[in-house]
Amino acid sequence: MEIKVVRKVLDANDAIAAENRALFAEHDVFVLNVMSSPGSGKTTILEKTLTGLAPDLRAAVIVGDICTTRDAERLARAGAPVVQINTEPFGGDCHLSAQVIREATRELDLGGIDLLIIENVGNLVCPAEFDVGQDRRCVVFSVTEGEDKPLKYPLMFRVCDLALFNKVDLLPHLDYDLGAAKEHIRSINAKIDVLELSGRTGQGFEPWLGWLREEVRRKRATSSRHAEARA
Amino acid sequence: MEIKVVRKVLDANDAIAAENRALFAEHDVFVLNVMSSPGSGKTTILEKTLTGLAPDLRAAVIVGDICTTRDAERLARAGAPVVQINTEPFGGDCHLSAQVIREATRELDLGGIDLLIIENVGNLVCPAEFDVGQDRRCVVFSVTEGEDKPLKYPLMFRVCDLALFNKVDLLPHLDYDLGAAKEHIRSINAKIDVLELSGRTGQGFEPWLGWLREEVRRKRATSSRHAEARA
Repeated sequence: MEIKVVRKVLDANDAIAAENRALFAEHDVFVLNVMSSPGSGKTTILEKTLTGLAPDLRAAVIVGDICTTRDAERLARAGAPVVQINTEPFGGDCHLSAQVIREATRELDLGGIDLLIIENVGNLVCPAEFDVGQDRRCVVFSVTEGEDKPLKYPLMFRVCDLALFNKVDLLPHLDYDLGAAKEHIRSINAKIDVLELSGRTGQGFEPWLGWLREEVRRKRATSSRHAEARA
Repeated sequence: MEIKVVRKVLDANDAIAAENRALFAEHDVFVLNVMSSPGSGKTTILEKTLTGLAPDLRAAVIVGDICTTRDAERLARAGAPVVQINTEPFGGDCHLSAQVIREATRELDLGGIDLLIIENVGNLVCPAEFDVGQDRRCVVFSVTEGEDKPLKYPLMFRVCDLALFNKVDLLPHLDYDLGAAKEHIRSINAKIDVLELSGRTGQGFEPWLGWLREEVRRKRATSSRHAEARA
């Protein structure tokens, strides 16, 4: 009974996610859904990412938290349009659904951006089940979290296109086996891209910004609007 | 509609939690529900805790993960009875419910233990909503996670009796404001106990083991079985 209800919720979510995807395609906006445990450093990475992408790429962020607008305030300082979603009025939802992304998108000028980054609620479980209409999904995985997380939260690593190791500046102070962590990721998802960086020091940001630029370029190359413009 | 169903699920859970609580009281077992983000170091803390409590206190552990038996294998090496719950067959549940705790409890000899530690699924959101029949709840909060987690996941810090800062050996390598983190916790829950330790180095374990011993003692002092024994 409970399972049936959950299935219905997910089906309804997927239908709205498809509408979101069509809307993003219409405006040629590349959308990345960024997920992770609480405290893996998503917001710090995104602060530096927004600064690093400007001015050649125009980015916006939708940031989900159960409550508080702290992350949105931090990101807004980087100069990009930011929409904060608080899930507390929706029962403290532990994930962003396609429906709340649709509502948040109404606050943004999609025609004025190239890239939309969705910072999901900090949770390695539930957000992996909810398609929000993104092009790509990224999991941020802090090296302070233990190497075996991909094995224990396999759905997250299975649905993602990129695993971003964060806090690598702390590696000298940890008993962390980065090679084992990468092997665990590959055992769950052989096709996933893997990058390493530090949101605190900025090391490793060039490959990450390059990955984003390449994804935006690829989306444009396949878009009908740009195809018409080229013709 | 969805909210009503969730309410029903929680009501059913609370009824079973009350039965669990009665069962634990009957056997004079103190039960601690340990929750946290993924990768905050629960299992490492519990390994050292089981060793530190023996032989004067007899402990058992129920450990919840979506999948794998890695944590149970680690804890079993410490010599305590361990029951692993995998929630994957239940739709990859992101929390332990009173029902699964009841089933796991059947695998344990409650008469032979003083203390039952429940290591919940790594998630700062959903486990806070599910009473499993514990006496006390503890949130493990790693200093690598960012000071503002109590503000962003307030329910977790509101329902807990103890906040256990972990990985304090890393403080010299982090830009972490422990005072601010404690203030955030107190602003959410003025009554919560707060302790600091490092699962890796063992520093701070004596106050934590003392907290556990005191709770076990307190439970016995109020128990009818021990009261009869004393009479």
